[in-house]
Amino acid sequence: MPTLYGMLGSGNCYKPRLLMAKLGRTFRHVETSSRDGTTRTAEYLAKNPNGKVPLLELDDGRLVAESNAILLFLGHGTRFVPADPYDLALVNQWLFFEQYSHEPYVAVRRSLFVYPERKAQATPERLASLLDSGNKALGVMEAQLKASPFLAGDAMTVADIALYAYTHDAGLGGFDLGLFPAVAGWLARVEADPGHVPMTWTPA
Amino acid sequence: MPTLYGMLGSGNCYKPRLLMAKLGRTFRHVETSSRDGTTRTAEYLAKNPNGKVPLLELDDGRLVAESNAILLFLGHGTRFVPADPYDLALVNQWLFFEQYSHEPYVAVRRSLFVYPERKAQATPERLASLLDSGNKALGVMEAQLKASPFLAGDAMTVADIALYAYTHDAGLGGFDLGLFPAVAGWLARVEADPGHVPMTWTPA
Repeated sequence: MPTLYGMLGSGNCYKPRLLMAKLGRTFRHVETSSRDGTTRTAEYLAKNPNGKVPLLELDDGRLVAESNAILLFLGHGTRFVPADPYDLALVNQWLFFEQYSHEPYVAVRRSLFVYPERKAQATPERLASLLDSGNKALGVMEAQLKASPFLAGDAMTVADIALYAYTHDAGLGGFDLGLFPAVAGWLARVEADPGHVPMTWTPA
Repeated sequence: MPTLYGMLGSGNCYKPRLLMAKLGRTFRHVETSSRDGTTRTAEYLAKNPNGKVPLLELDDGRLVAESNAILLFLGHGTRFVPADPYDLALVNQWLFFEQYSHEPYVAVRRSLFVYPERKAQATPERLASLLDSGNKALGVMEAQLKASPFLAGDAMTVADIALYAYTHDAGLGGFDLGLFPAVAGWLARVEADPGHVPMTWTPA
């Protein structure tokens, strides 16, 4: 049975758990967090020198880091990862958008409110800058979701799972999803897709 | 003939040009830059609502944004993108590492020195923080490149092209590559791979 190292409160770690749940695949969850130092132990750094979660460990010990790389790997050959090269390119485009233009603003602003140890970093200037850049990312999603029901077209893919993770609770970071009605409609479509589980879910 | 919109001085835009050159594929280069406003015109935003370069436009008008998504698309079926799902997962892992843990520090610190209009942002605190995070990313690469000749194993892939783009001139951002001998050896291997072209190259 594969192991997923991750932190229950992290959207990045939620992504592969949500996909595994939807695919009905069994796995072991090992709580590992940047907040308590478990991502910085020698044992963990030997598995992932970048010291981040999530991390997937296969039965034979092989490892995959980076949440969106894990999504593409676990979703390979399923309805969540297109086989057509151009359709796959659109999925990849949204996955890189998520890590570069969305997560560093939407997720980081949320972390400044949710994690007490980060409160000192929540200066008014930083909060304003993160709000502006996060709203820009949500606006890019809004434009696409006015044109298609899911980010990469007519069907749900790992791009939707990746962007759902930190968009669905962007309110915790002070983002007003009421400004983005197409995004709100898309969140409901993602939640209605079979096998949905909440962020706190772990395998029994 | 496909069109690549991009900025000659940008490592992100160099990535697809380097791959196209290595593959011997013809394309049209259209200089488009965040520095002169050409990424913010209505015409360009209609093609890429995120207002970033590079952007690939195919003969039939279809578009792919995000440098690393373009690499995966153009490299599909070539020696630069593995067909095996696990080998591909390792490539994807490094591509996401590049955009999340490397580019925001190594490339951004370089931009503060190279682009005069960004000089006001180059506070001592920011430069120190970027140096620290950038060196951490280079250290993660160093550990891998002590273990394998290329980032994802024995063969060069798009992961190497992506990380070459902003590592080869990290010195412009004040990074000392002398601290990372395995990275320096890898840079030479990437440059020795057939069809290499410098960052300033465009098709005739």
